[in-house]
Amino acid sequence: MVGIFDSGIGGLTVVKEIFKQLPGQPIIYFGDTARTPYGNKSQETISRYSIENTNFLLSVGATIIVIGCNTASAMAYDALRERFSEVPIFEVISPAVEAAISATKNKRIGVIGTAGTVNSGIYERKIHELDPEIKVFHEPCPLFVPLVEEGWIDRPETKMIARKYLSKLKQNQIDTLILGCTHYPLLKKVIQAKIGNRARLIDPAEATAKKLADFVVKRGIKFTAGADGSRFYLSDLTPKFSVIAEKWLGRKISFVIPTERRNLWS
Amino acid sequence: MVGIFDSGIGGLTVVKEIFKQLPGQPIIYFGDTARTPYGNKSQETISRYSIENTNFLLSVGATIIVIGCNTASAMAYDALRERFSEVPIFEVISPAVEAAISATKNKRIGVIGTAGTVNSGIYERKIHELDPEIKVFHEPCPLFVPLVEEGWIDRPETKMIARKYLSKLKQNQIDTLILGCTHYPLLKKVIQAKIGNRARLIDPAEATAKKLADFVVKRGIKFTAGADGSRFYLSDLTPKFSVIAEKWLGRKISFVIPTERRNLWS
Repeated sequence: MVGIFDSGIGGLTVVKEIFKQLPGQPIIYFGDTARTPYGNKSQETISRYSIENTNFLLSVGATIIVIGCNTASAMAYDALRERFSEVPIFEVISPAVEAAISATKNKRIGVIGTAGTVNSGIYERKIHELDPEIKVFHEPCPLFVPLVEEGWIDRPETKMIARKYLSKLKQNQIDTLILGCTHYPLLKKVIQAKIGNRARLIDPAEATAKKLADFVVKRGIKFTAGADGSRFYLSDLTPKFSVIAEKWLGRKISFVIPTERRNLWS
Repeated sequence: MVGIFDSGIGGLTVVKEIFKQLPGQPIIYFGDTARTPYGNKSQETISRYSIENTNFLLSVGATIIVIGCNTASAMAYDALRERFSEVPIFEVISPAVEAAISATKNKRIGVIGTAGTVNSGIYERKIHELDPEIKVFHEPCPLFVPLVEEGWIDRPETKMIARKYLSKLKQNQIDTLILGCTHYPLLKKVIQAKIGNRARLIDPAEATAKKLADFVVKRGIKFTAGADGSRFYLSDLTPKFSVIAEKWLGRKISFVIPTERRNLWS
């Protein structure tokens, strides 16, 4: 079983891509809604949370882990690799970096994300490992997550904020923009309009699901249950999250709070 | 010692008022930055967190507890009262309600706050207990907290969002507006401009500090240390929080993460 965790519901954009690229593949999702968001928290805290989340997913049957969250991928991947060395772990950053490098023609790539992701400098580092000549420009966009969670997808306020965040990247004439946070693909239309049609948007969810699909197919892994056998866990249940989740995934899902495991997340 | 907890740094507006109204009074602050914000979380989760936070404050020497957070005041006060029946506990809602009732002339009061606070209906209930004839209008303003934490205090985007949130309250001709979230006093200028000069803004921090000061003076409680003896604890330390906190309080403070107690907050 593929287990995916996220700081909240953002990782559902990754789930949606997995359902698209691996039809019939059941998944186990864990959203850490009791401690969401991760974007402004410290590396130490995010690593601790990510280890707890992974332990939980393994305890309920996951055998492959996907970190469905850019901040946790940036901050906690190394800690997870070390702690769970025998488990295949996928993060969302490397696949996006590879896709962006294939896409860019003028070698000017932009990255947007939470403060945690952007300040970690991980996108820049990974891009330069593969091609040191590429110029990387980045901008934290901390208001995008609350705007998406408010459902303010194409309101004038959202457009105004997007223009403010993206103007420097536009001036720097990037031709490729990595949407370095799982919430951002929901704002694709506004972001594309403000950054201009010349720039290609890279969605890490898509790139990550593709990498996972390749792995699964190569290993000849077979699944017994259909996608309906998927399970969704949350550390806190608020009515709003179910509504957003169903809207995003386009299907009814029921969330479970594993209360007997509550101490895991305090 | 007075112990104050908040979901993060918002409660520092209450601390600032306490320093103003009780000069020389040292306090112990705990900001739950590892699990912030509380605004969209469930009552069960917020109660659990509030009990843990109170236990921590008592363990480090607090003898009076102030819930420096509207969401926790709305969701967890009863649970704390029951659990810690011998400790004086102050919340920020009743003092604001009393101040608003004294202020209103046309008996039309507005309340803004997080989704959690507004949906709990607690302001309406408490106002109607004291005066059932008052009409209460409310509006959740979930983007105000991230805007304040971004430092976007008087940007055009903030003004536009404030106009959107406050237009219905303005149409309803309220003459008194309760700022039902500890972050909102930082947006006083923008809020006053958009709601109009006729409406009086009620800051729960001010009203709560006054109530606490009355209690302290009446009981003849004496303090040995000066305000410099205050201690500030956080469950997660990010550079941003120190910067915002010092800007708000107008003085240098050093935060402590009590790592030996980390399991309290998982």
